[in-house]
Amino acid sequence: MTILIENGTVLSATGSSVHDVLVDGEKIAALVEHGSALTASIRADRVIDATGKYVIPGGVDVHTHMEMPFGGTQASDTFETGTRAAAWGGTTTIVDFVVQSHGQRVQDQVALWHRKAAGNCAVDYAFHQIIGDVNAESLKAMDELIGEGITSFKLFMAYPGVFLSSDGQIVQAMQAAARNGGLIMMHAENGSAIDVLVRQALASGHTRPYFHGTTRPWQTEQEATHRAAVLAELTGAPLYVVHVSAKQALARIAEARNAGLNVFGETCPQYLYLSLEDQLGAQGEKWRDFEGAKWVCSPPLRARAEGHQDELWKYIRTGAVTAVSTDHCPFCMKDQKEMGIGDFSRIPNGIGSVEHRMDLLYQGVVDGRISLQRWVDVCCTAPARMFGLYGRKGVIAPGADADIVVYDPAGHTSIGIGEGRVHHMNMDYSAWEGYEIAGRVDMVLSRGIVIKDSTGYVGTRGHGRFVARSLAQNLL
Amino acid sequence: MTILIENGTVLSATGSSVHDVLVDGEKIAALVEHGSALTASIRADRVIDATGKYVIPGGVDVHTHMEMPFGGTQASDTFETGTRAAAWGGTTTIVDFVVQSHGQRVQDQVALWHRKAAGNCAVDYAFHQIIGDVNAESLKAMDELIGEGITSFKLFMAYPGVFLSSDGQIVQAMQAAARNGGLIMMHAENGSAIDVLVRQALASGHTRPYFHGTTRPWQTEQEATHRAAVLAELTGAPLYVVHVSAKQALARIAEARNAGLNVFGETCPQYLYLSLEDQLGAQGEKWRDFEGAKWVCSPPLRARAEGHQDELWKYIRTGAVTAVSTDHCPFCMKDQKEMGIGDFSRIPNGIGSVEHRMDLLYQGVVDGRISLQRWVDVCCTAPARMFGLYGRKGVIAPGADADIVVYDPAGHTSIGIGEGRVHHMNMDYSAWEGYEIAGRVDMVLSRGIVIKDSTGYVGTRGHGRFVARSLAQNLL
Amino acid sequence: MTILIENGTVLSATGSSVHDVLVDGEKIAALVEHGSALTASIRADRVIDATGKYVIPGGVDVHTHMEMPFGGTQASDTFETGTRAAAWGGTTTIVDFVVQSHGQRVQDQVALWHRKAAGNCAVDYAFHQIIGDVNAESLKAMDELIGEGITSFKLFMAYPGVFLSSDGQIVQAMQAAARNGGLIMMHAENGSAIDVLVRQALASGHTRPYFHGTTRPWQTEQEATHRAAVLAELTGAPLYVVHVSAKQALARIAEARNAGLNVFGETCPQYLYLSLEDQLGAQGEKWRDFEGAKWVCSPPLRARAEGHQDELWKYIRTGAVTAVSTDHCPFCMKDQKEMGIGDFSRIPNGIGSVEHRMDLLYQGVVDGRISLQRWVDVCCTAPARMFGLYGRKGVIAPGADADIVVYDPAGHTSIGIGEGRVHHMNMDYSAWEGYEIAGRVDMVLSRGIVIKDSTGYVGTRGHGRFVARSLAQNLL
Amino acid sequence: MTILIENGTVLSATGSSVHDVLVDGEKIAALVEHGSALTASIRADRVIDATGKYVIPGGVDVHTHMEMPFGGTQASDTFETGTRAAAWGGTTTIVDFVVQSHGQRVQDQVALWHRKAAGNCAVDYAFHQIIGDVNAESLKAMDELIGEGITSFKLFMAYPGVFLSSDGQIVQAMQAAARNGGLIMMHAENGSAIDVLVRQALASGHTRPYFHGTTRPWQTEQEATHRAAVLAELTGAPLYVVHVSAKQALARIAEARNAGLNVFGETCPQYLYLSLEDQLGAQGEKWRDFEGAKWVCSPPLRARAEGHQDELWKYIRTGAVTAVSTDHCPFCMKDQKEMGIGDFSRIPNGIGSVEHRMDLLYQGVVDGRISLQRWVDVCCTAPARMFGLYGRKGVIAPGADADIVVYDPAGHTSIGIGEGRVHHMNMDYSAWEGYEIAGRVDMVLSRGIVIKDSTGYVGTRGHGRFVARSLAQNLL
Repeated sequence: MTILIENGTVLSATGSSVHDVLVDGEKIAALVEHGSALTASIRADRVIDATGKYVIPGGVDVHTHMEMPFGGTQASDTFETGTRAAAWGGTTTIVDFVVQSHGQRVQDQVALWHRKAAGNCAVDYAFHQIIGDVNAESLKAMDELIGEGITSFKLFMAYPGVFLSSDGQIVQAMQAAARNGGLIMMHAENGSAIDVLVRQALASGHTRPYFHGTTRPWQTEQEATHRAAVLAELTGAPLYVVHVSAKQALARIAEARNAGLNVFGETCPQYLYLSLEDQLGAQGEKWRDFEGAKWVCSPPLRARAEGHQDELWKYIRTGAVTAVSTDHCPFCMKDQKEMGIGDFSRIPNGIGSVEHRMDLLYQGVVDGRISLQRWVDVCCTAPARMFGLYGRKGVIAPGADADIVVYDPAGHTSIGIGEGRVHHMNMDYSAWEGYEIAGRVDMVLSRGIVIKDSTGYVGTRGHGRFVARSLAQNLL
Repeated sequence: MTILIENGTVLSATGSSVHDVLVDGEKIAALVEHGSALTASIRADRVIDATGKYVIPGGVDVHTHMEMPFGGTQASDTFETGTRAAAWGGTTTIVDFVVQSHGQRVQDQVALWHRKAAGNCAVDYAFHQIIGDVNAESLKAMDELIGEGITSFKLFMAYPGVFLSSDGQIVQAMQAAARNGGLIMMHAENGSAIDVLVRQALASGHTRPYFHGTTRPWQTEQEATHRAAVLAELTGAPLYVVHVSAKQALARIAEARNAGLNVFGETCPQYLYLSLEDQLGAQGEKWRDFEGAKWVCSPPLRARAEGHQDELWKYIRTGAVTAVSTDHCPFCMKDQKEMGIGDFSRIPNGIGSVEHRMDLLYQGVVDGRISLQRWVDVCCTAPARMFGLYGRKGVIAPGADADIVVYDPAGHTSIGIGEGRVHHMNMDYSAWEGYEIAGRVDMVLSRGIVIKDSTGYVGTRGHGRFVARSLAQNLL
Repeated sequence: MTILIENGTVLSATGSSVHDVLVDGEKIAALVEHGSALTASIRADRVIDATGKYVIPGGVDVHTHMEMPFGGTQASDTFETGTRAAAWGGTTTIVDFVVQSHGQRVQDQVALWHRKAAGNCAVDYAFHQIIGDVNAESLKAMDELIGEGITSFKLFMAYPGVFLSSDGQIVQAMQAAARNGGLIMMHAENGSAIDVLVRQALASGHTRPYFHGTTRPWQTEQEATHRAAVLAELTGAPLYVVHVSAKQALARIAEARNAGLNVFGETCPQYLYLSLEDQLGAQGEKWRDFEGAKWVCSPPLRARAEGHQDELWKYIRTGAVTAVSTDHCPFCMKDQKEMGIGDFSRIPNGIGSVEHRMDLLYQGVVDGRISLQRWVDVCCTAPARMFGLYGRKGVIAPGADADIVVYDPAGHTSIGIGEGRVHHMNMDYSAWEGYEIAGRVDMVLSRGIVIKDSTGYVGTRGHGRFVARSLAQNLL
Repeated sequence: MTILIENGTVLSATGSSVHDVLVDGEKIAALVEHGSALTASIRADRVIDATGKYVIPGGVDVHTHMEMPFGGTQASDTFETGTRAAAWGGTTTIVDFVVQSHGQRVQDQVALWHRKAAGNCAVDYAFHQIIGDVNAESLKAMDELIGEGITSFKLFMAYPGVFLSSDGQIVQAMQAAARNGGLIMMHAENGSAIDVLVRQALASGHTRPYFHGTTRPWQTEQEATHRAAVLAELTGAPLYVVHVSAKQALARIAEARNAGLNVFGETCPQYLYLSLEDQLGAQGEKWRDFEGAKWVCSPPLRARAEGHQDELWKYIRTGAVTAVSTDHCPFCMKDQKEMGIGDFSRIPNGIGSVEHRMDLLYQGVVDGRISLQRWVDVCCTAPARMFGLYGRKGVIAPGADADIVVYDPAGHTSIGIGEGRVHHMNMDYSAWEGYEIAGRVDMVLSRGIVIKDSTGYVGTRGHGRFVARSLAQNLL
């Protein structure tokens, strides 16, 4: 099967070029000047006219949590439903997290996650490993996982008793990464401080969702981010700070990068658009009632008045933000978020966005926030390089997997679960209800197969395969 | 005429990919997976085996001064000899400076420079415009030049009475650039302060070349760089600071970039390898005699002991340095540099490096200073984007000019005019005598023509053409 | 004549202490524990009960321009009227500026200023020297003036053709100061850039006072401040940046201080309280008509919305601001400010505040902005140390001049020319009309003589004497 | 009893003044101009001629650990021997630490410390409280202690299981301080990370004293310092970081201060003079044998090659260092330090310096590092203000305690236990052996009693009294 995508504006992280893209089987076989002699010689099984449209590498979302266990329930998207929603939105690779909590064996969990995903996914997937319990056995497992294509290890400075690593444990895991070439990912919030603030808030009767945000102030994120960066310098490990929401935390990342350290930052669409004030109520009520739970995630949404969003967009431009992922971790309001009625600390943390990332960031282009190149870079190319996928993913080049999105700048997307809106994640609400995007995902190919076209999702469960990753390809 | 470059490791600013490159006439016609069905169908006139070699975009040197008038003499390379040397070294595009001094008309000078270059060049060339006299007429000319493909304008904060613009003049030129989309390039040294230090040194009998460096201390560069960045912020103009040599100046550029400003930095190989101490003498003599004149350039070489070089390499990694150019401005010792015997201030300023840039920076890869991707980016892709050449130059993509270098990492290059060494610039000495490079420029194509192969230079005078440039393509 | 000031709370830059102060003739003879045996033995000619009041060193205002020539007119306060107003306000020493413009001889001007002041002043006075024309003769004069007690030299980066020194001239003057121990004071605004903006504004019909502020944007102050600091580092001269109004400029001063440089900052009450918006008009008119001229000074008042004032107060707390002076340079609206009707650039620059500085800064204590200690330090002690007056002025200690203010925290001061308000400067308006201060200058002694008491000013013209100053006493 | 100290140069934090000081009983009764009528009337019981000498406030050492329990032994100086040594060296007030470890009751420990000190001290003493176990009871005790004159609370980020507070505990203690006005003191080293490094070093056979330093790298201090500063910002508590040794940590303190936070830094003489290299061995042995234990303290001595000392002196000049204390915690080599033979982690941590602080810092004046004013400030005045002693201690003013040192700049002090050297601390070695000081403590008064004169120590055990302290007097 060959497909010729004709005359599109092919975007990369550095620029654009109008030419044809030839897909042969699962791979990109050639990039050919449109109308050239060689093009004329090609007899493709299918021709897609991309005139006036952008042709970009399939989106790479390096931060998802499909069917993740959380406090007796689990994230509402399975690998099946979640990757299907990703496909709708132009994301053709996800990197999900295998979870090792205190007391669990890493390799058992890896096997479990392989079982969860295998045969269910609409698009390709890879794994990071959460090391929730740094000990001799899990440190040894880190070395093994490198050989199994799981080359990044997430640690937590929050969630004492569940995931939190002490600084001594972090040092040991970082030493392992410095030795085996792996990448340390960090959830950088000071959980010890936060837990005190949470207890105090609850004791004061501040139980509504809004207080989730006020009990995780930006200082706790700035502090932990700096701590992680210093420990990375101490040990020589490369560091990728996930889901940065506070400008002060990003300033510390920018500072470390200027010092020449391999420190990288990630942010998510929710921190670019949504804000703590959304969880406040209208006039007359002091704060929004339980509806605010829709936007409970960690780190929390920051106060708009403090100016984080402008700074986050700025840092996407300047490169302190390497990648924009979703931290997709959806829960329904019914039965799930509702677990936290009367106690915000019991609300499952997470927002579902895997479907909307490419659109939401494209809107940043339309709004003059970022260039087309940065859009492609932070959504596709840079995450692929950061996580050892580049060459197969994140780039349109001969030999690469034919993961391709045709994006229509003349299209339009209305997000939400309302009439005429787009939402395919397994949730009973949308955190993005009412967002309007001046563009549209037109067509999506995953390894040479069209999985989304103008009629909608046309892919197959189980098409998506596990991708073993190499080491980071963008270290300074 | 078609050429197939087979099986090379094609490098870009973001990664590498092994595939074939098909050249058809002046352009790149296709990138094709090696060994694919499509490759098999291609009957190229010439096949170049690039197995085990790097295939990269032709080098883009955005800072040269061919046959530039200077104090009664002129730079010793003409457009003919200089671009031929560039070809030897894998540089397929130069951007040279049209000079308008006080009292001259811009358009007259543009016409003069076109006459100098036309029909003489081995590789393609473009022009920046030096605005040495900011006035109503030259401001108007800036608008005109945008339409003529000269989209960048260099101002000087040094050389009072010749090139120096007052801050008020800089503001006016920057306002013009903010309006017409042009790019302001800045020679950022505080000439007013420097001139006092030079006069004082000469009056004290400090006349040897070494004192060229001591009378242009890093503070004068840091200061001017900051001043330029602040005026750019004031006016909204994008700013590219040329030939940065001091770490303190680059720190100011990094600071401006972090603030989200369109401020860019350039450095040159001489600042990465050579140092002020090279102009000091051996033990027994207080400072090296007139031989130090070989390395007289402005800004001067900095003191190795102050640690500039490590910081400059670091800033190449972190992106505060956007491009590495040569500031190629060669003069012979005989009759030219010798004008400054007894008075360092009369030594023509400049070092010849246009031939060696690609090699010297590749050595940085070998030495573990930068990645292959940064090598390609700062030497080829980023300068092309910065100066509106990308698409035609700086990238290997269908439709781009077939400016291609095959670089052999298993080769070796000995630089210098001695026996068995490489040096094709029109100079009677090499500033780089004795430098050994663990790599070699194997083959060079310019717009589809092989102009350098294993036998040496095989190009033609006049093959190179003027390239009209668009506006900067990498603004934040 | 002996005076005993009993039982006051004596404040210093480091703390407070309740005790008696004995004045004998012109000097402070002793500080004595109240109620001690020694106190009992003292038979003073006059006893002042300071119970419940602050006893502080007389104010030292190191930046005044009495009867300064400006564009055909002169500042409306003479040494007589200006120092009398100072006395009213608790300032017992002023340091005024001898003006040397382009083409004038320094020593002629010094003699002229001595003639203006001698026999006219209500309080003691000293001189700085403005070097408006740096040349061999004025550089030599700098050395001479050190011996004559004029140990600080003000340069201008603004006002081309009148006062502006080129950077080369600044370097030379700084070299002289580094050699002779003098202090360089700098008016740090980029005059070359400003003049362009002013010409453009006027050409656009933007002629009202408000545009004085918009044509001197903060960037021009930040830039010049950094430039001055870097040239100070280059030459080794200590630097005192006068009348800093922009937070960005103070940030550069703080940065230099952290690097260990002898760089000092001054601000003025107008920058702490007044703002550019005061020159805007009410709704209906786009900007306030000519009344805005009341607040035309240079640097201009900054936009309140940009948050300068909070930062300036902060920098008073942190020490980046060494002294708060007035830059007292009053002009009447009638005939003087009115010279600029239709052309803001002709409005004489200046605000009159010499009378209100102690009160306005005390209000900062009441408002919780600064501590009592910082009040005394920035108004009295630190300026005395900075300018070689400490020991005689700025401190309450045996042997010091008996310049003492009794300040009543239970008092109240209404500033302005309206009914029941306080204003003794020779102006037909007050820039501070309506300001209310929760404190009051109760009594003022100058060299042992009560010159202001509850009945008002009771001093004598000519009591004030010239004070020869030593070198700076607070260098790092 | 009255004492007149005649004609000395009385130094303060802001300047100097030659005058007489009259002591009456325990207090300073008056400062009187020398040779004045009032002086003539004074009939003092004793007259001390201080001509040509400095008269300064008695030294205030706010960081000592007399007879502190440590790993089964205790610091070798008792309150008796330690305060006697302090008296020898011109320190007339110490602030020692009451120790509450995990599981102990604060008030029990306070009572115990009062018993240890009462009746034994040569000079006045006060207490800080170490809160090693933050819990409901100790938080309550913090409020009580404020009323008992113990107004500062030290927390530890090091020594897990003994003193370390979790970040959540730190937040709670800081909240208490923000509420009750107390000052948080912080031992800022990341103990969790350090413990891992220590275990690894010991497991590698790196057991000698030198490895104490290498296992506490500067990053662990920088990190903890930043963490403490951010938590202080979060809670609103004032913060005083004790014994800062790394320039990177002080840079964070300077940064916080510039932001207007009440963050203060302390350093100690050992960090200004001694270095990690002192613990390395001579050529032939890889590192110095157990003798290096003499200089084992925490934080450790830093590598001279990294340039910490110049930066520490600089920060004393700029004010980022508020006070210089000793962290006096002496142990003998015999039986005490020797506990760590074969395992550096068992070496009791500490250096004895309480006797030499005034001299060692005065040497900084002689060496041109700091001014006389900064000497007095960081040794006497600023620590008194920081810890609520000012007025009684730290200043020469009527009503203040007559704690006075006559310091002879023409004297000389040879430190050490060798022949002709000075050392009165209860140790079998001196960490300062061979240090030569160009000055000498001539005479020391404590509350009006001469306790050290040219014959040596002439004081009395038990003269020293507990001083209840007020809140900090120098907050921004």
